[in-house]
Amino acid sequence: MKLPVIETLLTPAMFPLYSENIENKNVVVIDILRATTTICVAFENGVEEMIPVGSPDLAKVYQQKGYLAAAERNGSTVDGFELGNSPQEFTPENISGRKIAFTTTNGTRALELSKHAANVIIGSFRNLDAVVAFLLNEKKDTILFCAGWKDKVNLEDTLFAGAVADRVKHAFEAEGDAVMLSRDLYEFASSDLYSYLQKASHVQRFKALHVESDLDVCLRMNTSQSLPVYKENSITLKQNESVYR
Amino acid sequence: MKLPVIETLLTPAMFPLYSENIENKNVVVIDILRATTTICVAFENGVEEMIPVGSPDLAKVYQQKGYLAAAERNGSTVDGFELGNSPQEFTPENISGRKIAFTTTNGTRALELSKHAANVIIGSFRNLDAVVAFLLNEKKDTILFCAGWKDKVNLEDTLFAGAVADRVKHAFEAEGDAVMLSRDLYEFASSDLYSYLQKASHVQRFKALHVESDLDVCLRMNTSQSLPVYKENSITLKQNESVYR
Repeated sequence: MKLPVIETLLTPAMFPLYSENIENKNVVVIDILRATTTICVAFENGVEEMIPVGSPDLAKVYQQKGYLAAAERNGSTVDGFELGNSPQEFTPENISGRKIAFTTTNGTRALELSKHAANVIIGSFRNLDAVVAFLLNEKKDTILFCAGWKDKVNLEDTLFAGAVADRVKHAFEAEGDAVMLSRDLYEFASSDLYSYLQKASHVQRFKALHVESDLDVCLRMNTSQSLPVYKENSITLKQNESVYR
Repeated sequence: MKLPVIETLLTPAMFPLYSENIENKNVVVIDILRATTTICVAFENGVEEMIPVGSPDLAKVYQQKGYLAAAERNGSTVDGFELGNSPQEFTPENISGRKIAFTTTNGTRALELSKHAANVIIGSFRNLDAVVAFLLNEKKDTILFCAGWKDKVNLEDTLFAGAVADRVKHAFEAEGDAVMLSRDLYEFASSDLYSYLQKASHVQRFKALHVESDLDVCLRMNTSQSLPVYKENSITLKQNESVYR
């Protein structure tokens, strides 16, 4: 039996090279620092729905309808918003039972590009096992879509793609060198991701922004078995969880 | 003193993100399997000049003017051409003292994109030390430009970029995560590049094309101290070699 194919898409800049037949593929959107981590934390802490929007102005429209609004640009909370993109702000007190409209530098764009895929799921180290279980159950061609930083490659998203690709390698055919590159980088760095990522440019950016403690939150593994799914411009928890658990 | 910046450009697809101020930057064009390796071998074996052209038809125009013509597409020699892209065809008997017009799947395009740079030099494992010496002498912002495979990333070009970046790291500031990714992949694989690259998709392609022995030629280190330079659509040896030796 032919195995399904798995590919790593290193940045949105290369999306057109991977989008053929995307309606038959699953996409894992990856923005470890911090959008997809923050989404996972939000669902761990009881958020009901998250709506990714393209601009802070659009987030404000949702704010007027009773949504919480979160907006980040270049790593900082945009003025006039209740929340930015730090997972540590998404506490049960702040968000449980609420709906949130949010916009971020890179993650929102990767979600929008992926919208025609069979399934678009949200990946972070916090729900790594849930992502892996979903892909193994689905047995469908899969793109590990790294949101990157302004169309360039970043280390942390590549590492997470490698962690997923490594865990499903018995059940998928690796297609193209990027997936092997991500797996090997993960093997190189996996013994201590926290130390390894100190050199990542986004961690350097964090230091400048005094949000270093976010890195620890973003690298915590499997704190959640939940799988946020993006569909029709809304992120909710996958309903029928028994299917992939 | 501020160090010059070094970046790894993983594929031509991301070139627009790196092209600002390119007239003040040096570019190392990298197409290990096989265009830039073959160019280095050709100069080792006495070729006088190499002209990269965009199509087999254009190579034929040069052929009619007395040039040798080399054309490769998808790894194979194009029908009607004396040479393809295998370095093993570029023997002294075949090419010494000759001028060659050539076209390849990926390498030609990376050269064309780079043409406005301060200097465009040809990099391969065969002239690694000469490339490093040039960059250290120049002390100019530098792009390590991986030609990739049809706009996607490949392992072998990324590894060579990492080998260069590793050797100049004391004299350059690494900018962006791609250069660190390339350095770390090189560190991961450097103890045995030949075995490591068996999994590269282009090596798999080689096996299908029965040109496996090219890999050995392409990974031989520092067989040459010469530095081919691309300028005004022509590749020749750098004239004033004493400057960088």
